[in-house]
Amino acid sequence: MRIREATAEDWPGIWPFWHRVVVGGETYTWDPDTSEEAARALWMAPAKRVYVAEDETPDGTAVVGSAYLTPNYGGPAARIANAGFMVDPDRTGRGIGRALAKHVLAEAEAQGFRGMVFNAVVETNPAVRLWTSLGFTVLGTVPDAFEHPKDGRVGLHIMYKAL
Amino acid sequence: MRIREATAEDWPGIWPFWHRVVVGGETYTWDPDTSEEAARALWMAPAKRVYVAEDETPDGTAVVGSAYLTPNYGGPAARIANAGFMVDPDRTGRGIGRALAKHVLAEAEAQGFRGMVFNAVVETNPAVRLWTSLGFTVLGTVPDAFEHPKDGRVGLHIMYKAL
Repeated sequence: MRIREATAEDWPGIWPFWHRVVVGGETYTWDPDTSEEAARALWMAPAKRVYVAEDETPDGTAVVGSAYLTPNYGGPAARIANAGFMVDPDRTGRGIGRALAKHVLAEAEAQGFRGMVFNAVVETNPAVRLWTSLGFTVLGTVPDAFEHPKDGRVGLHIMYKAL
Repeated sequence: MRIREATAEDWPGIWPFWHRVVVGGETYTWDPDTSEEAARALWMAPAKRVYVAEDETPDGTAVVGSAYLTPNYGGPAARIANAGFMVDPDRTGRGIGRALAKHVLAEAEAQGFRGMVFNAVVETNPAVRLWTSLGFTVLGTVPDAFEHPKDGRVGLHIMYKAL
């Protein structure tokens, strides 16, 4: 697996799993009807640094995951980062999310961010365990905020790690 | 004082105190260098409902405060609201913020929102007392996230009220 900064040419490799994950409606607070154009504008916004994980697949080298890094706030709080992660659902359980997270945390620190916040982690998302194992803590939970297709109304964690 | 939905024509009345408050750098996580055009795009974005408080001033009826109401998340969490409030610094202490907040909370409930989140309340901001008196609680605090010109590094509260 190789992690590198994304280019505009990577988007067609990201969109199929991005769409599948968002339509699944279990982990992201984005509209399942988000168009490809809107999704690209959101994931690859100018203020974001975007990364991809590439791996060998039966069809050759392919993008198997992606992440973005961006300031979570502006002005006097601009040194707190936010990041988002998405892994191809066919490739979970292979450490791609963990590898992307470690890469992005190192990048954030190198870019001078002093901490990282996740604003809306669905409390039933298995990724909560991953973030906790990487040193994130739950600062608080917005109760019953997320309508999960299987779990019903669940909370959204705000998670934080100092850098 | 009268509170009503804003129109595009209200922006010139909002911008002078918006700019002054953001340049002050004590309460908002926006860039003090935000241009008038960018500020308008931010405060009056299409996804936002915007309100103004009008009052009599020595120069006649004027906009003395403004607020916006918008979903804080999309998709499966779209029924949690976010709001922002700004009062002319020359007109604080007259209940304008409280009146705007009550109006926006009633609007949010009428529009079907189930809760309201403030994502980044500077912990030394006197408005924390106002939000608490209106039933908001501090869900958690991002430590040392905000570089306050007088107080140094202070935390950012995430505050919440069920509707």
